[in-house]
Amino acid sequence: MSTIAYLGPEKTNTHFAAQKKFGRRCRYLHAPTVEDVFRLVERRKAEYGVVPIENSLEGAVTHTLDRFIDFKDSPAKICGEIELPIQHYLIIHPGAAVGKIRVVYSHPQALAQCRPWLVKNCSGANYRERDSTAEAVKELFNKEEKSWGLNERGAIGRSELAKEHRLKTVPIPHDQENKTRFLIISLKATRPGKRNKTSLMFALKDRPGALHDTLVPFKRCGINLTKIESRPSKRKAWEYLFFIDLEGHESEPRVQKALKGLGESTSDLRILGSYPIQRG
Amino acid sequence: MSTIAYLGPEKTNTHFAAQKKFGRRCRYLHAPTVEDVFRLVERRKAEYGVVPIENSLEGAVTHTLDRFIDFKDSPAKICGEIELPIQHYLIIHPGAAVGKIRVVYSHPQALAQCRPWLVKNCSGANYRERDSTAEAVKELFNKEEKSWGLNERGAIGRSELAKEHRLKTVPIPHDQENKTRFLIISLKATRPGKRNKTSLMFALKDRPGALHDTLVPFKRCGINLTKIESRPSKRKAWEYLFFIDLEGHESEPRVQKALKGLGESTSDLRILGSYPIQRG
Repeated sequence: MSTIAYLGPEKTNTHFAAQKKFGRRCRYLHAPTVEDVFRLVERRKAEYGVVPIENSLEGAVTHTLDRFIDFKDSPAKICGEIELPIQHYLIIHPGAAVGKIRVVYSHPQALAQCRPWLVKNCSGANYRERDSTAEAVKELFNKEEKSWGLNERGAIGRSELAKEHRLKTVPIPHDQENKTRFLIISLKATRPGKRNKTSLMFALKDRPGALHDTLVPFKRCGINLTKIESRPSKRKAWEYLFFIDLEGHESEPRVQKALKGLGESTSDLRILGSYPIQRG
Repeated sequence: MSTIAYLGPEKTNTHFAAQKKFGRRCRYLHAPTVEDVFRLVERRKAEYGVVPIENSLEGAVTHTLDRFIDFKDSPAKICGEIELPIQHYLIIHPGAAVGKIRVVYSHPQALAQCRPWLVKNCSGANYRERDSTAEAVKELFNKEEKSWGLNERGAIGRSELAKEHRLKTVPIPHDQENKTRFLIISLKATRPGKRNKTSLMFALKDRPGALHDTLVPFKRCGINLTKIESRPSKRKAWEYLFFIDLEGHESEPRVQKALKGLGESTSDLRILGSYPIQRG
């Protein structure tokens, strides 16, 4: 039986993403931070780790990118990805009404994404940020909170969070596609799939046109880039590291050829992993 | 007398950045959100607006980037930048001792940046996030907070925040260079300086090698790129918009030539502004 570490607590989106991939016949360990997920994998306490990397509305999860920067020698590799559609629900007590909600708890990203709907439907409500959507739902029962009655409180999260407490759920519609992508990390490599992706990290040599020169080998070898992201190097102000995702597996000759061509314009090149592309 | 809108409240880093640039002989308006700063400028309630765009450790301020995406037709242009070194202080009551602090309040970014020092020097302390460092300092006097005595509380912020209350400041050393860059926005263009920068935003046409092709005109015209950043388009999942800063002014022929060359590989190209480079 495999052990899967994920960014917890239980019943958050990362937990559901992990279950979607690995099913119910695994041991799940929830870890309080991205750093803890990586450590559990690196110390062989978990075979796989699951962390969020990107949301289609909010962008990169910088904690996860920065973990690759801070521990360049980590033996953990990306061995897969999981895509999960995000549907937010306003979770309230059975006796409560949407229009009478005066405080809404949730994770800052969920609050930001639902803000337009909340302004319209729960006008004048206060917003309170919590570390996770699961923590937010607990506030619906928090007896130490005297400012708001039980029926005046709402939380935003997945519908599964409401089930065990028999709470009411109201779906929050979105104009835009809301999806989160998660990475699976492990000490073991995975077998290539039909279509694969390779994630790289590198610094640019300090010379004009370095970024352009970096992209030339990919263009020449006909390799499509699906993503480019930059993050501060943390060594020197306004110096950056780049993260690139490309279509192809590092075992393919054309990918190997392109990677060889990167040496002249980049430094500290690291292959973070090659893994099958997942579309949710 | 010019009116300057900035991301408030008073005495935050953005306020000091604005004062560094515009001096004391201006009227300052603090606005609660990045959106409000832009609106004050767009509605001519303020001549200039100041918002954070990037920190050398934490990376891009995504609220500010996304404002350019969400309001593509805004008449507000970037007309300058301000760089401010960030020195964090632990602010405590005169009778307090660093080793006896049990709760530390601050903005999430400041807490994250000072975490290693806090773990070492205020071990076992609790962390409480506040919307700004100025809000955090108010907690040192909050009488409704019964869990911690006055001498058990600390806040992280600039030393100026401590002065008016006669609080004690303890500098928090950093291994890495900590600077924040701010943008000045206005409806008026500025005159070119000695060295200038131009900020662009665009989408890529959906074809292999599009990002590479975008960088070719810059390389050909000998134009150096100082920054590239990507953000979700919010129209379709995993579709991105790119922000590029280049050295040069849009009035220079070589910059104009390069911009013309961008049409084939990009769509929705927008020049966000040309302005003098500032180094702090």
